[in-house]
Amino acid sequence: MSASTSVAAPPILLVEETVRIALLEDLGRAGDVTSAATVAPDAHAEAVIASREPGALCGIDAAICAFQLQRAGLSVEIHAADGARVAPGDRIASISGNARALLAGERVALNFLCHLSGIATTTAAYVSRVAHTNARIVCTRKTTPGLRALEKHAVRAGGGSNHRYGLDDAILIKDNHIAVCGGVAKAVTAAQAYAGHLVSIEVEVDTLEQFEEALHAGAKIVLLDNFSADQLREAVALNAGRAVLEASGGISLDTVAAVAETGVDFISSSKITISAETLDLGLDINIK
Amino acid sequence: MSASTSVAAPPILLVEETVRIALLEDLGRAGDVTSAATVAPDAHAEAVIASREPGALCGIDAAICAFQLQRAGLSVEIHAADGARVAPGDRIASISGNARALLAGERVALNFLCHLSGIATTTAAYVSRVAHTNARIVCTRKTTPGLRALEKHAVRAGGGSNHRYGLDDAILIKDNHIAVCGGVAKAVTAAQAYAGHLVSIEVEVDTLEQFEEALHAGAKIVLLDNFSADQLREAVALNAGRAVLEASGGISLDTVAAVAETGVDFISSSKITISAETLDLGLDINIK
Amino acid sequence: MSASTSVAAPPILLVEETVRIALLEDLGRAGDVTSAATVAPDAHAEAVIASREPGALCGIDAAICAFQLQRAGLSVEIHAADGARVAPGDRIASISGNARALLAGERVALNFLCHLSGIATTTAAYVSRVAHTNARIVCTRKTTPGLRALEKHAVRAGGGSNHRYGLDDAILIKDNHIAVCGGVAKAVTAAQAYAGHLVSIEVEVDTLEQFEEALHAGAKIVLLDNFSADQLREAVALNAGRAVLEASGGISLDTVAAVAETGVDFISSSKITISAETLDLGLDINIK
Amino acid sequence: MSASTSVAAPPILLVEETVRIALLEDLGRAGDVTSAATVAPDAHAEAVIASREPGALCGIDAAICAFQLQRAGLSVEIHAADGARVAPGDRIASISGNARALLAGERVALNFLCHLSGIATTTAAYVSRVAHTNARIVCTRKTTPGLRALEKHAVRAGGGSNHRYGLDDAILIKDNHIAVCGGVAKAVTAAQAYAGHLVSIEVEVDTLEQFEEALHAGAKIVLLDNFSADQLREAVALNAGRAVLEASGGISLDTVAAVAETGVDFISSSKITISAETLDLGLDINIK
Amino acid sequence: MSASTSVAAPPILLVEETVRIALLEDLGRAGDVTSAATVAPDAHAEAVIASREPGALCGIDAAICAFQLQRAGLSVEIHAADGARVAPGDRIASISGNARALLAGERVALNFLCHLSGIATTTAAYVSRVAHTNARIVCTRKTTPGLRALEKHAVRAGGGSNHRYGLDDAILIKDNHIAVCGGVAKAVTAAQAYAGHLVSIEVEVDTLEQFEEALHAGAKIVLLDNFSADQLREAVALNAGRAVLEASGGISLDTVAAVAETGVDFISSSKITISAETLDLGLDINIK
Amino acid sequence: MSASTSVAAPPILLVEETVRIALLEDLGRAGDVTSAATVAPDAHAEAVIASREPGALCGIDAAICAFQLQRAGLSVEIHAADGARVAPGDRIASISGNARALLAGERVALNFLCHLSGIATTTAAYVSRVAHTNARIVCTRKTTPGLRALEKHAVRAGGGSNHRYGLDDAILIKDNHIAVCGGVAKAVTAAQAYAGHLVSIEVEVDTLEQFEEALHAGAKIVLLDNFSADQLREAVALNAGRAVLEASGGISLDTVAAVAETGVDFISSSKITISAETLDLGLDINIK
Repeated sequence: MSASTSVAAPPILLVEETVRIALLEDLGRAGDVTSAATVAPDAHAEAVIASREPGALCGIDAAICAFQLQRAGLSVEIHAADGARVAPGDRIASISGNARALLAGERVALNFLCHLSGIATTTAAYVSRVAHTNARIVCTRKTTPGLRALEKHAVRAGGGSNHRYGLDDAILIKDNHIAVCGGVAKAVTAAQAYAGHLVSIEVEVDTLEQFEEALHAGAKIVLLDNFSADQLREAVALNAGRAVLEASGGISLDTVAAVAETGVDFISSSKITISAETLDLGLDINIK
Repeated sequence: MSASTSVAAPPILLVEETVRIALLEDLGRAGDVTSAATVAPDAHAEAVIASREPGALCGIDAAICAFQLQRAGLSVEIHAADGARVAPGDRIASISGNARALLAGERVALNFLCHLSGIATTTAAYVSRVAHTNARIVCTRKTTPGLRALEKHAVRAGGGSNHRYGLDDAILIKDNHIAVCGGVAKAVTAAQAYAGHLVSIEVEVDTLEQFEEALHAGAKIVLLDNFSADQLREAVALNAGRAVLEASGGISLDTVAAVAETGVDFISSSKITISAETLDLGLDINIK
Repeated sequence: MSASTSVAAPPILLVEETVRIALLEDLGRAGDVTSAATVAPDAHAEAVIASREPGALCGIDAAICAFQLQRAGLSVEIHAADGARVAPGDRIASISGNARALLAGERVALNFLCHLSGIATTTAAYVSRVAHTNARIVCTRKTTPGLRALEKHAVRAGGGSNHRYGLDDAILIKDNHIAVCGGVAKAVTAAQAYAGHLVSIEVEVDTLEQFEEALHAGAKIVLLDNFSADQLREAVALNAGRAVLEASGGISLDTVAAVAETGVDFISSSKITISAETLDLGLDINIK
Repeated sequence: MSASTSVAAPPILLVEETVRIALLEDLGRAGDVTSAATVAPDAHAEAVIASREPGALCGIDAAICAFQLQRAGLSVEIHAADGARVAPGDRIASISGNARALLAGERVALNFLCHLSGIATTTAAYVSRVAHTNARIVCTRKTTPGLRALEKHAVRAGGGSNHRYGLDDAILIKDNHIAVCGGVAKAVTAAQAYAGHLVSIEVEVDTLEQFEEALHAGAKIVLLDNFSADQLREAVALNAGRAVLEASGGISLDTVAAVAETGVDFISSSKITISAETLDLGLDINIK
Repeated sequence: MSASTSVAAPPILLVEETVRIALLEDLGRAGDVTSAATVAPDAHAEAVIASREPGALCGIDAAICAFQLQRAGLSVEIHAADGARVAPGDRIASISGNARALLAGERVALNFLCHLSGIATTTAAYVSRVAHTNARIVCTRKTTPGLRALEKHAVRAGGGSNHRYGLDDAILIKDNHIAVCGGVAKAVTAAQAYAGHLVSIEVEVDTLEQFEEALHAGAKIVLLDNFSADQLREAVALNAGRAVLEASGGISLDTVAAVAETGVDFISSSKITISAETLDLGLDINIK
Repeated sequence: MSASTSVAAPPILLVEETVRIALLEDLGRAGDVTSAATVAPDAHAEAVIASREPGALCGIDAAICAFQLQRAGLSVEIHAADGARVAPGDRIASISGNARALLAGERVALNFLCHLSGIATTTAAYVSRVAHTNARIVCTRKTTPGLRALEKHAVRAGGGSNHRYGLDDAILIKDNHIAVCGGVAKAVTAAQAYAGHLVSIEVEVDTLEQFEEALHAGAKIVLLDNFSADQLREAVALNAGRAVLEASGGISLDTVAAVAETGVDFISSSKITISAETLDLGLDINIK
């Protein structure tokens, strides 16, 4: 296992609440009836969570919560942190204690770990493709409802960077806003007048003409939507380092390197969140 | 658009709570600052949600909530129900009213619709592959944390059937339970003694020997885990109609027909939930 | 005290939330003002909860929560588990620590213990009356709002078995459904077509004619509603072991044995939940 | 039906939250699967809730919520208010609209109505027995966890009066507090020093000696615990109108009149809450 | 630092919930990004909270929660209790442990401490001005939404007393109620008929005539609204010790002594809650 | 009344939840017992909320919620929007409908309106003092726990601008972070490396030397903490338009103009939130 990277996680109160909801939806009203029927109440178990394929890890906090919120004194030892690159067979965590509680938390813990590690792993694949450039990979607001903070964190665990977290923490002027305001420049000006000094403003443009208009209006961050590689190169030249440039729209693992080589600063893609395959992790348990 | 099928949705109180969490994570503390900066507070908008690719629809209730929980009097007209098969260009819903509220709900509504319709569409693909057999496609407990009920519903919207909803509503005896109890027969007997008369009991077996032991113990539902097509055929013959048979383990869209043709009753796969691609749906808006 | 039986309890997260609501409704906004006025903040107390009449115990988890959610480091030692049969004077739990916290949790702990033990005790009385038969006593959905999972568990603690937990975990076809569908057979067939392979289907019949129709339709579980003992015997004969039979309707402690002797498999009664007298348990405290 | 009395109900936000919890515990994750299988999604139903035995009504607000929180546009017409005395056959409410929503709310609505009306009816029986005296019947803090406010309201609906709602809204000095403080007088004095001018103070005494000590300490409300009728009469004479007197301890429907005739002002009993039989109310439905 | 007074705090479950909301509104979805960027995940910190100006302390429980709800094992040592009088430089609490968690809790802990100590300090100033009389200072229902219980407690920490906590725990008859009922006497009589024996009744009067009417109706607690000092003196004389008297309306720190000297029992003012300046407390941190 | 300005409010779901908490803390378990005792259940009332002193209005959404969450069909007509400047006597809202519901919402509605309007009014006073300069007034994270979003909005309603909403939506490097990182430049560089492209970075400096270091490190937003007017002028000159400059530290209404005249871009003060006097608004009611 490679050395793990330190990546700051979402507030634990928020993680805990998310896991609590997930546990309650799995345990329902009667709890784990199979274990109640077949496992003694005081049976002891030991388990290891390990990776079954290479990838980037994420979701450790949620997994811990899935076991510890059972309030059964389960002991959890962590062997790898969020952001760690894992190989098949690498041990991620060891859990021991009451067998029923351990079994009750297993599926929820894995559902979080596999889902978030999948996003981290997919992000890492995109990041790897653009490593020879200065471009950074960023996510979008296309995330799973209820898991935004955890998924944004998984993107960072995979080496990516975050776009805004929601509608409230940055301004992103899109086509509709431009249409309503009567043009790129007017929309940018309206946003500058409204925003506090710590609110970033980005404007999305569809054409080079709009891009020039945005630059003239003083835009500092511009999203170039569905630009071809040639158009992106032209925009980078035109920009001459003035604005931060983000490319977006239909970019895949196959095309991301070419986009990065145009010289844009950021490349955003919803594929790293909503199209990520889960990472295959397993829990092996030994009950006595 | 084909005629929509009637599929019962999860309790609206549960859907509402799930959407409320999703809206709050997108709107944060300050709400949609871009619209606040660029759209007049009393601007009127009209929007249409339409499909951009063929698929099976799901998530209508959640989408409606995303708009109506804004408490802004948005009017939502529904053109297609959960379970409907849609073609590119088919209109799914029309929304009109306050422009800011409509924009604030757009992303959340689409995140639910695209995610759940993706599961329905993937399920429908599997169902279609086994249509010449009596086998039915069922999901697992590998679902997105917090969205279990909605995703189980999406499986039904795609023509699939549901496995248990959680650890509490049916007994599923797995390898660990068998090991702890000292064998398949003992585990099945323990479960029968514990379960109420409305709790179904399924036992997972890894070999034909275990399968025979399960039948002798009176098992009525058996999960044949990672059996080859030949082994499945042998189990079906051995069974002679006594137990309900479910095949599971590594089944893909390419192999599902072969599995179904062995004569099993159910085929379960986590791929229809956690590996489903989102369905591409779009919202076109016109603000005045 | 007789040896306690091991009965699996509802998920602790659910119990905790239920007790949290109960504590807040008792403590209100200002907390225990009597103790604040008369007991020193660092006074130490020791208490014992004991039974004052014979019965079956239930509610230990909730009682523990009532003390421990005070976050005052109270120490709780448990002497009897859910399901234990207790005699007058039997000690159930010992609590020691901060006197104010102990007093603040007393009433809530007892309200849970007395209420749930009352249900367990009443259930045990019914179970005892049918011990010479194979019939099992089951509860209904007539439970106290908000306490369903705890009360279902109390029924098990008393030796009873559970009917479905809610509208979602089993199908129970009643008179209205039969009327809407156009007959018993049609309703059963509709249910079979809808249900997943782990969802049990029970049909309620009012007459022997309906019962025969249900059997012909392949019903596997039948509720015989308001049948006389003679009618029940006739149904048992007619059934010849095909379906699981449940008797229901106006059955009391006085009549339950006669019903059980007809040969039915299950007897359901709302009396074991909503008509159970509370069990008299007391807490004796010594404050220093 | 006699004319209904106007009795103020608990805050609707609190009732709504209590009913929301009850609905979710009945509907679970999948909702009413029986209706989904057997009733058309657009079927229309009409239902009437009527009494099947004489009693005092309570729980109308909760019943309305059970139907209206389905968000299905059910129409609810109320024929009798909380506090109304009902005879067998009296109509209480009429509900019409979507059949599935109506069926989904039925059990929860009835569970609230029957439980709360049972408390109102039992209270009314006690009140009736003391109607020839000035004594008023009051409840205690022995209530069902989570339903305190609703049950206190049911006591008022039955013509009773309320003791304190919780540990926070009045001071009730009991034996432990007296022991800790070193006597009745010291405890009363400590409470008077602590309490704000709107906080009532009651002190519980076990003997006439303690009662005299309480009077001398200026106690304005005294609970005479487990006093015989003779002792109560003696206390009333001794009191000479100075303090408000409450009798408590082991009082039943058979003995309450004798207690009231001693001249005490209030008689408290937990039997009117925790030992109340549910009132038999039924819902008859007609689905088209 | 003067010796701290023991003042009972609100239920810890309620404090915890209030702090949880405050932490989540400060930490948002991504948590403390500044610390994530600049402080090592395992950095250790030690901090001291100290007063920077003289005052009365309040909010210790909330401050502890702000650190401990981070679930990072922070160690908190308390040097002064709620109600303690502090001088500049007095140490209030020491916190040590994970630096990121300590920084994440700092602002929330201080926001509670400074706000609540401000109320305690302002109350103490009013209390000090009337120390030569028997009058006590009480608060009103003009409190910050969501913080009522904490602010009422802060009033007590400052030496004041509490008015009712809400609309439910005492009756306060105001001008509108008097108008609707047709006079002071009728309103008082209606309230006496309605209230349980533990519910206090206060009536607000605007004139001496109304005051006399209230006394004749048997009012035991009377609020003299906007009376001049002369009118108050006249009311005190007229009262002759019969009712508890509360003066209210436009009373400031400058005028409170004169009001108290009229002989009223209580003086209520919203200024001690909504007009209190925050107390200046600081946290000094040392990160290694 | 001057024409009202349009200021975007926080998400209504968030406002609603905040008001729900406030209503429940005022209504408690029994609701408004005074109205229950003295006002007929079907009494009709009409009320007007009006200003009693000049100021800037804020809190309309919360006030509406306080009435409408009573679910009693109260009709609310709004005469002035958030941000409006009001004079004594100006009508703000008219409410009519059920008298009990109107009375139950009165105090909560006013508590929000007076508190938030106080912040808006105080902010407006600061804004007015710097109107002859380009400086803008901004708030801090010193806000009332639980009301951050509403108070930030009140600052905008008063003409001010917002600093970051929490620890998560912008980086603000303070003395501790600088100490840990080993200097201003290193801390700024660490932040730039960590932050996504939409996360603003501000660094707080205490001296002109630190300021220069920050500029050389490429800081784009600098907080000049506790600089004298002379130092601020020097910093403005040194800056030469490169970074956005914010002055902070001990700035009062008396000194704010002098600070603004130094040429800084922003002036932050906690006084506009935590030291704002409430605005005097009243509700006059007429019950029939």
